[in-house]
Amino acid sequence: MTIAEIAEQAGVSVPTVSKVLNGRADVASATRERVQDVVARSGYRRRGSTPRRRTGLVDVVLDRLDSFWAMEVLRGAEIEARRTDRQVVLNTSENEAPGSRAWLDRLAARGSDGVVVVVGYQDQETAARLAALEARVVLLDPVGGTDPAFPTVGATNWAGGLSAVEHLIALGHRRIGIISGPPRLSSSQQRVDGYRAALRRAGIEVDDDLVHYGDFLVGGGRRGAAALAALDDPPTAIFAGADMQAVGVYSEADRRGLRVPEDLSVVGFDDIALCEHLRPSLTTVRQPLARMAAEAVRLALDEPRTDADGAAPRLELATDLVVRSSTAPPRA
Amino acid sequence: MTIAEIAEQAGVSVPTVSKVLNGRADVASATRERVQDVVARSGYRRRGSTPRRRTGLVDVVLDRLDSFWAMEVLRGAEIEARRTDRQVVLNTSENEAPGSRAWLDRLAARGSDGVVVVVGYQDQETAARLAALEARVVLLDPVGGTDPAFPTVGATNWAGGLSAVEHLIALGHRRIGIISGPPRLSSSQQRVDGYRAALRRAGIEVDDDLVHYGDFLVGGGRRGAAALAALDDPPTAIFAGADMQAVGVYSEADRRGLRVPEDLSVVGFDDIALCEHLRPSLTTVRQPLARMAAEAVRLALDEPRTDADGAAPRLELATDLVVRSSTAPPRA
Repeated sequence: MTIAEIAEQAGVSVPTVSKVLNGRADVASATRERVQDVVARSGYRRRGSTPRRRTGLVDVVLDRLDSFWAMEVLRGAEIEARRTDRQVVLNTSENEAPGSRAWLDRLAARGSDGVVVVVGYQDQETAARLAALEARVVLLDPVGGTDPAFPTVGATNWAGGLSAVEHLIALGHRRIGIISGPPRLSSSQQRVDGYRAALRRAGIEVDDDLVHYGDFLVGGGRRGAAALAALDDPPTAIFAGADMQAVGVYSEADRRGLRVPEDLSVVGFDDIALCEHLRPSLTTVRQPLARMAAEAVRLALDEPRTDADGAAPRLELATDLVVRSSTAPPRA
Repeated sequence: MTIAEIAEQAGVSVPTVSKVLNGRADVASATRERVQDVVARSGYRRRGSTPRRRTGLVDVVLDRLDSFWAMEVLRGAEIEARRTDRQVVLNTSENEAPGSRAWLDRLAARGSDGVVVVVGYQDQETAARLAALEARVVLLDPVGGTDPAFPTVGATNWAGGLSAVEHLIALGHRRIGIISGPPRLSSSQQRVDGYRAALRRAGIEVDDDLVHYGDFLVGGGRRGAAALAALDDPPTAIFAGADMQAVGVYSEADRRGLRVPEDLSVVGFDDIALCEHLRPSLTTVRQPLARMAAEAVRLALDEPRTDADGAAPRLELATDLVVRSSTAPPRA
C-alpha cells in the first residue's frame, strides 16, 4: 500500500500522512488516529522502521557541476562521508528532478545511507516523497524558505549581507549597489535584506534602482554592473551576491575604464579559492561551504535530533567578512 | 585462491598471472600454459568471466577535489554516466591509495560498472590488483607513461606545448621560460618536450635555466616566475603548464611591477572557465577535460576494444591554442 493510497483512505493529504509516519507533532490528534488506523489495517511498513541496511553511499544532489561553489560542496561532503567510511554519489538535476518518480525508484532500489539535496524542490508532493525515503534527507542552502519536515543547513546570509554593506559604509560610501542572485532563492532575499538593514541603520535611504537580481554567474554580475553604471547617479560601490558575479563586475568596470577600487569598490560573497588571486584581490563574505556540506552529511547520517515540538534541526553557519584589496574609500 | 597464490604456485609474477587471465598476447606460451594449469586446478574463477551485475555506478578516482580541473573531470564523467543511466561515485585518494586492499575490498563488495582512475599508481602489484577487478579500469591523463594493461585517455600534451611556444616565437619572443608540473607526470614531461621541439625548430638554443618544474597550483607558478625573473637574462614570455600556475605568474609579475603582456607574455594550459575572466584574459592551450573524462567513462563501460596484438586502446584528444590578451610581441 502506498502513501497516496493511505492518504485517500484516511481522507487526508499525502503530506499529512508523511507527517504522521514521521511522528511529527503538528497534526491534529483525530487526524493522526485516523491515519494510524489506516496504516495499521494496511500492513504498511515504514521503510525507516526496519533496521537500515548500510550501503556505504551518501547521495549529494546538485543542480550543476560547473562552479567552485559546487566543488566546495562536494569536497566538504566527501570529507565527512570518508570520515564515516562512506562515499559520495553525484546526482545532478540537469535532466531529472530530485524527487521525480524515476529518481526515487532508482535511489530506493540501490539504497543510500543519506541524501543531501542542494537544489530546491517547490512542491508538497515532492517533499512527501522525499520524506518517505528510507534514507534521511537534509537540505543544504535551501531554496525558498525551509521545509520543517527536513533538517537544513545554511549560512547566515542576512548577517553576511549586513557585514558587507557596513564595511562599505564605514569606508564612506553612500551610493551602494547590490547584485543579488535569483529572487526565488531564500539566500538571495536574505542578502538583500541584510543590505537594506545596513543602509537603514546608517540612515541612508534605500534606492530601489540600486537593487539588482541576476544569476550567480559571471554574466549576472556583468549585466548588473552595466545596469548600475548606466544610472544617472551610479554607485561608488557594488556588493555582489557571489564571487563569480564580482568577476563580472570587474570585467564590466574594466570595459568602462573604471578602476577597482579607486573608482569602484567591489565586495563578493562565498570566498572561493579564486578571490585572493584576482587583481585586485577580492574583499568578500566568506561562507564555510565545505563545512556546511560536511554538517549536512552528518545530519543525514546521524539519528534525527528534533526539538521539543518535533521540528527538524536547522543549522546556520556563520559568515565572515574577508577584507582584501577591492574596497577603498570613494573619490572625494 | 588469490592471484598471488596462483603466481606463487606457477612460479611467475603477479602481473604475468594478470596478463594470462586477461588473455594478453605478450606472455610466452610455456608460461601461459603453466599459469592456466594452476588456474584450472585451483578452481579460480575470474570475476570478469561471469555476467557482470549492473550496479548503476561508475567510480571516478581523483587525487583531490579542489580545482576547476577536478570539477571539469567530474562534469564530463557525470554527463557520460547519466547518458547510460548511471551515477558517479567519488573516490579521493587523500587517505587511501586506489588499489589498496581496503579500497579494492570495498569496491568489490559494493560493485561498480566501471572505474576511471585519474591519479597515478606506481607499482606493478597495484596494477595487477586493478586488472583483476570485476569492473573495467581506465586511466585518465596517466602518470608516468601508460600501462598497456589498461585503456588510457589523455590529451596531446606534446602538441599542446609545441603550439604554445610556436605562438610565442611567432610574436617575436626568443627568451621563453617554461614552468611545467611535477617531473614524475608524463603530461609535464610531454609539455616540456613540445617546448624544446618548438625552440629547436626555430633554431633557438634551449637554455636549461629557463625550464622549471613545480606543482600545478598557483604557488608553483608564483615560485617558478620568481626564479625566472631573478635570472640575469630573464625571459620575455612564460609558458605555464596549468592555468592556475599562470595565475601565480600574473601575481608574481604584479609584485615586481611587470605588466602582462607589455613586459611579460604568459600562456597557460587547460582553459578552465576562469581564463576569459582574468585580467588580461589568458592565452592558453585548451585540453578538452570534460570530453576526456566522458571518453574514459565510455571506455570503462563498453566492451574492451583491443587492437591486433591485444593492447588496450589509447586515446589522445587534441588540444587547441586559444589566443586571448596575455600575449604580445616583446618590447623592442
